[in-house]
Amino acid sequence: MFRRVYLDNSATTPIDPAVVEAMLPYLMAKFGNASSIHFYGQEARAALDKARHQVAALINARPNEIVFTSGGTEANNLAIRGLIEARQSRDGDIAAKPHVITSAIEHSAVLNVCDDLEKQGVTVTYLPVYENGIVRLDDVRAAITDETILISVMAANNEIGTLQPIAEIGKLVRELKSEGKKIWFHTDAVQAAGKMPLDVEAIGCDLLSISAHKIYAPKGAGALYVRRGVRLHPQNLGGHQERERRGGTESVPNIVAFGVACELAQNELERSAAELGLLRNSFESKVGEMISDVVFNGDRGNRLPNISNISFRSIEGEGLLINLDMQGIAVSTGSACSSGSLEPSPVIRALGHEDELARGAIRFSFGRFNTVADIDQVIEMLPKAVETLRSLSPKK
Amino acid sequence: MFRRVYLDNSATTPIDPAVVEAMLPYLMAKFGNASSIHFYGQEARAALDKARHQVAALINARPNEIVFTSGGTEANNLAIRGLIEARQSRDGDIAAKPHVITSAIEHSAVLNVCDDLEKQGVTVTYLPVYENGIVRLDDVRAAITDETILISVMAANNEIGTLQPIAEIGKLVRELKSEGKKIWFHTDAVQAAGKMPLDVEAIGCDLLSISAHKIYAPKGAGALYVRRGVRLHPQNLGGHQERERRGGTESVPNIVAFGVACELAQNELERSAAELGLLRNSFESKVGEMISDVVFNGDRGNRLPNISNISFRSIEGEGLLINLDMQGIAVSTGSACSSGSLEPSPVIRALGHEDELARGAIRFSFGRFNTVADIDQVIEMLPKAVETLRSLSPKK
Repeated sequence: MFRRVYLDNSATTPIDPAVVEAMLPYLMAKFGNASSIHFYGQEARAALDKARHQVAALINARPNEIVFTSGGTEANNLAIRGLIEARQSRDGDIAAKPHVITSAIEHSAVLNVCDDLEKQGVTVTYLPVYENGIVRLDDVRAAITDETILISVMAANNEIGTLQPIAEIGKLVRELKSEGKKIWFHTDAVQAAGKMPLDVEAIGCDLLSISAHKIYAPKGAGALYVRRGVRLHPQNLGGHQERERRGGTESVPNIVAFGVACELAQNELERSAAELGLLRNSFESKVGEMISDVVFNGDRGNRLPNISNISFRSIEGEGLLINLDMQGIAVSTGSACSSGSLEPSPVIRALGHEDELARGAIRFSFGRFNTVADIDQVIEMLPKAVETLRSLSPKK
Repeated sequence: MFRRVYLDNSATTPIDPAVVEAMLPYLMAKFGNASSIHFYGQEARAALDKARHQVAALINARPNEIVFTSGGTEANNLAIRGLIEARQSRDGDIAAKPHVITSAIEHSAVLNVCDDLEKQGVTVTYLPVYENGIVRLDDVRAAITDETILISVMAANNEIGTLQPIAEIGKLVRELKSEGKKIWFHTDAVQAAGKMPLDVEAIGCDLLSISAHKIYAPKGAGALYVRRGVRLHPQNLGGHQERERRGGTESVPNIVAFGVACELAQNELERSAAELGLLRNSFESKVGEMISDVVFNGDRGNRLPNISNISFRSIEGEGLLINLDMQGIAVSTGSACSSGSLEPSPVIRALGHEDELARGAIRFSFGRFNTVADIDQVIEMLPKAVETLRSLSPKK
């Protein structure tokens, strides 16, 4: 029997049936526009309020510090461009040529915003990550100049899962602020949410992005945490929604779903992280036993419990992906958002690996609905697939 | 028996059961990320492609001219800011201080973008609309300067439903283009879609915005038509989605729903427009017969078939809205996106009416699921409600 195994949970997750059930009434009788004054509007408004509490609770924020967006990408855009534009509109508040610090392994939603800012006269430092895939605090400190107004470093990388020293960066930023420096800290926590505890007070960040469809809710909702007092220039201008920080009718069904998904993630955080870690580690030890010439990418201690990124020497990741897909196993070569690119993964290259290893990298990402049987199935097929491809490889 | 009547379809529509049914598989088994290469991704990609054809067909566009967004507001922002930023990035392509022409009665998603552009050195002309609520082509022509690069005039107004001369503006813009002028035409067709035929070739527009939740699909999807060859600077930077014009994982369930809603709207356009017109006209003649001192706002001939905007002298619209809401009837005082504002509707004021009439305006907007019984119920309650409020009014 053909049985599919989905190991691409970092690209997107299946939707939890409990999440679908919670959102369904908002696709049927409860269809109101949350800005309407009448009964239907109030019903929608109450649902948004509840979701805002649920999302805030996952990251220990206040509900009015949550701005709902259409997803993680929009949250990252709003955080970075919104902050810089808000400061630029206050004459003399920041340097004429402001400076932003980020890392070389951010998601394209951060890197492409930074690239765009550079064209507009902003200076950007891209911190290196070394072989373990982790930014060094000393590098952050050394990169700060008088012009630095924003540091954006992700909580956990989307391809290799490595955890970044965000609490240490947050502490540094708070120290600088206490000395009067105008500097803010954003972290893209899209991959980290639901897989590790996130507490905006413990992190000390000013801005934090999360996304619904990475935590078992539908695509089409995200949130930006905006610390009280931090001003952003809205990127979607329109109505008064989200306290003037994001115009546009809120997607009530998606946001209700997102709220419930956050509550589930919070309730199951410890258990699910432990279970995912067991599955992932069991998978990796079997791969290590059965397949030669593999490199596990990124620090194996300090990473999310659900990601395993492995380079298979002498083969192309994309060939392996397609071979596995024909056998019903879904994995990826890198971020789904970079698919279509012919370049090897910039994240794997940032580890200092040669192109061959970057091209041979596969991300296996586990999720709430994966089972031991899934791992067994992959372990049955993967060594043969690798062997077949290696036997065909001109590099061998 | 308490029976609710929803007459606020211009704020948002109930979701058509056929639309919910079509999207449900994408909330369950078909959960893939459309950027993923594997089976799940291809399944999602195929669904997006189908929806893109359905949306394009509604407005006679080519599928690759459709950019999916999170909604109408984002589509308007992308159209206006995206166009201007794309031109500005080409040195010398446009004037240092470009000029934009729009109308005084645009949706806040257009007006607030224009307001923001003015702060950045763009000049904006806001065309008047006179008592009939319609922009005059002569005014458009007279407003054009050497610096004009964009005209943004809505297809139909969201509060009073008046149709604007978009085909005439499109013709004028094409003539200017044929003379070598660099000028583009955007129309916000969010309210018009599904209520009147929209053909981007007949209109001659370069950019056109539509929204899912005004045509019986869920909140959280919209589209911008971008004529082939028109370059936009993306506002959501990230992955390669939407041919590099809008980063961020596509909300596949919402987009599938949007596509089906467009197909339904297209199939039922003539019949539903005729039925809505009958309902609305029957409602208005009864109001005219039974209630004194009312003003029907905007041109009664040249408008959408589903909107009736009526000012009731000597009363506050909000008081009437709340009175009707307590009796189960949902209406609005203006655009849902402006709710929370204490100002009388800028649209009604733009008609030249005094504040009293602007404050006493109520929008009744009909939709696919309204029946004659709904009208009868409102007509039973409305005269009494108006009488009660007038008897309490200090203005009387």
